[in-house]
Amino acid sequence: MPGVLNFWFDFGSTYSYLTAMRLQPLAAAASVQVRFRPFLLGPILKAQGWATSPFNIYPAKGRHMWRDLERLCEELAFPFRRPDPFPQTSLLAARVALVGLDRDWGEEFCRSVFRAAFGDGRRIDDPTVLSELVGALGIDAASALATAQSDAIKARLREETEEAQRLGIFGAPTFVCADGELFWGNDRLEQALRWATKAGNGE
Amino acid sequence: MPGVLNFWFDFGSTYSYLTAMRLQPLAAAASVQVRFRPFLLGPILKAQGWATSPFNIYPAKGRHMWRDLERLCEELAFPFRRPDPFPQTSLLAARVALVGLDRDWGEEFCRSVFRAAFGDGRRIDDPTVLSELVGALGIDAASALATAQSDAIKARLREETEEAQRLGIFGAPTFVCADGELFWGNDRLEQALRWATKAGNGE
Repeated sequence: MPGVLNFWFDFGSTYSYLTAMRLQPLAAAASVQVRFRPFLLGPILKAQGWATSPFNIYPAKGRHMWRDLERLCEELAFPFRRPDPFPQTSLLAARVALVGLDRDWGEEFCRSVFRAAFGDGRRIDDPTVLSELVGALGIDAASALATAQSDAIKARLREETEEAQRLGIFGAPTFVCADGELFWGNDRLEQALRWATKAGNGE
Repeated sequence: MPGVLNFWFDFGSTYSYLTAMRLQPLAAAASVQVRFRPFLLGPILKAQGWATSPFNIYPAKGRHMWRDLERLCEELAFPFRRPDPFPQTSLLAARVALVGLDRDWGEEFCRSVFRAAFGDGRRIDDPTVLSELVGALGIDAASALATAQSDAIKARLREETEEAQRLGIFGAPTFVCADGELFWGNDRLEQALRWATKAGNGE
């Protein structure tokens, strides 16, 4: 059985952008099956006493993060444009992602949202932007966004966020293997993939 | 001229342990001249509103850090034993390090303090432990510890901590190149060394 890696992310998370763009070839090379798990980081940060991103609360940390992201994108040849405002509400994007992940266009949609947010500096809290991104995949955007606002999908996103908190997730991206081993941060992607390929971590 | 990298660290910093143990061969391979810059992270964390380590304040983050450190030490074949209490006052160790760095035994002393703290789980806030570590290098420990408590060394450590804050350092380890480029975290050591080797970053 192939190893399994749960990729927990929030569309507002800067380092999740890097992981979303790096993940596919690395997972394929490691023969690891990845599950995209969008959730909302906001309620989890709030439970730690933070009303916004810690990168806004702690300016020196924030300054480093933006410069770090810029340097890493340059090395990786990924587009980078700092979004304003930051962070943006990722609620609707996450709901649309859940709709797509139930079908076959979810992962590509997730990458396109991250690229829009941090490669192009666009507003991913804007339904017209999300509609455009869905439409670009050849999918009926009006139908997808209507489904995204259904009670079932709203409940699913709440449950996923609760599950993230239950797993001990405190930031994004976070990788969780089938045995519960948890790795925080884009810098741990390779190590998490190695862990997932070990015996006993398949499902 | 060789590139220069300033390695800013606090002896209480878990990830600084990894850097201290990894640094020498990587810097030699990159022909980068490293300057060990001990400072006190406590006053800088306090200025951010934290009375102790954020790993203590945010339990989920703390749990991940200890497990992460354990996993990384296992991969790197470094000894690991979780110190108790954490963090310990690094004041005297940092002062002794400044004495040693003025002479020729500072870097070896720094590595031995980190190994004692996180490899052996010893009390590095204990003068008798520090004396033992200095003595093991063949140095007169009583004399070194007396110099460490001189007004000149006390002032130097205060100035170094103020300089760290002025540079925008908010955590440890932090790497600062000759051109002021700043990299935070053991995960950025290789990237910081690449930066330091670039033209224009020598002094």
